[in-house]
Amino acid sequence: MPSIQQNLEASNKDYVSSKFPGPLPLPPSEGYAVVTCMDARIDPAAQFGIPLGGAHVVRNAGGSVKEAFRSLVISQQILNTKEVLVIKHTDCGMLQFQKSDAITAVKQNAGEEGVREVEDIEFLTFPDLEEEVKKDVEWLKGKLVEKGIVVSGWVYDVQTGTVKRITA
Amino acid sequence: MPSIQQNLEASNKDYVSSKFPGPLPLPPSEGYAVVTCMDARIDPAAQFGIPLGGAHVVRNAGGSVKEAFRSLVISQQILNTKEVLVIKHTDCGMLQFQKSDAITAVKQNAGEEGVREVEDIEFLTFPDLEEEVKKDVEWLKGKLVEKGIVVSGWVYDVQTGTVKRITA
Repeated sequence: MPSIQQNLEASNKDYVSSKFPGPLPLPPSEGYAVVTCMDARIDPAAQFGIPLGGAHVVRNAGGSVKEAFRSLVISQQILNTKEVLVIKHTDCGMLQFQKSDAITAVKQNAGEEGVREVEDIEFLTFPDLEEEVKKDVEWLKGKLVEKGIVVSGWVYDVQTGTVKRITA
Repeated sequence: MPSIQQNLEASNKDYVSSKFPGPLPLPPSEGYAVVTCMDARIDPAAQFGIPLGGAHVVRNAGGSVKEAFRSLVISQQILNTKEVLVIKHTDCGMLQFQKSDAITAVKQNAGEEGVREVEDIEFLTFPDLEEEVKKDVEWLKGKLVEKGIVVSGWVYDVQTGTVKRITA
């Protein structure tokens, strides 16, 4: 068994024996959702103060609210959350990579047929961090289904651990 | 300022002053990615033993690998991660809700025009938890771009805190 899977099993065993607080209800107790990046340096519970059971956390490359939209509709319309925090971060890969970088790598790793599996993907890279936070917040606020939902935008600085408000 | 935002700022201040370990590099130190659900009862770092900076974490409603595919391509092809853990969980909303529940709620909250914003969304609900883990793992393994990537499937039990292996 690969060591990553061994680590999962061993760490989880420790969690169950010493840290699991017991069952919690499905709906988020704090009534909100966070959309953030998949980046390995982000730990939403610790960095953003989310108690276990408190909030939905949606994560993808770049913290795209467009890709998160299905999840947010479910969070808000079915589970009645009333607020979204959109938190992107400094040194994000989506500021540094282009779709062409992925295509080049895929061509090398999986050939032309592999390229066909990914060539239609919109990679959602962006050139300016704070502008992208504002754009995502505006895009979400523009949806009729967001009526009554509070949406705010933030940047997490991976060099200092600090969150900064971008939009009200 | 809403109290959720106050909590973010206050909790983050505490994190910076007492827990932030200092800057880490962008590529995941442990070389893997986790795909799991947005469910509020999931805390991947604590429950799955992920050190800060160790792994990409992709989360969406249900932990769908199809929706996570863009992020996984970036994780693997650009940032050279070599393994994926697909971890769904018991008592998942996607086992209990249907698209029709969302449409009914949207109609009530945002009218017929609101329904038009969500009616084309594939909600990715599923009837059987372990079968869905297997399906997602098989779907991902079937991609040419996954050549050389180890993919395994797991279920996290929200009643006990325990992860269980579903696929090798």
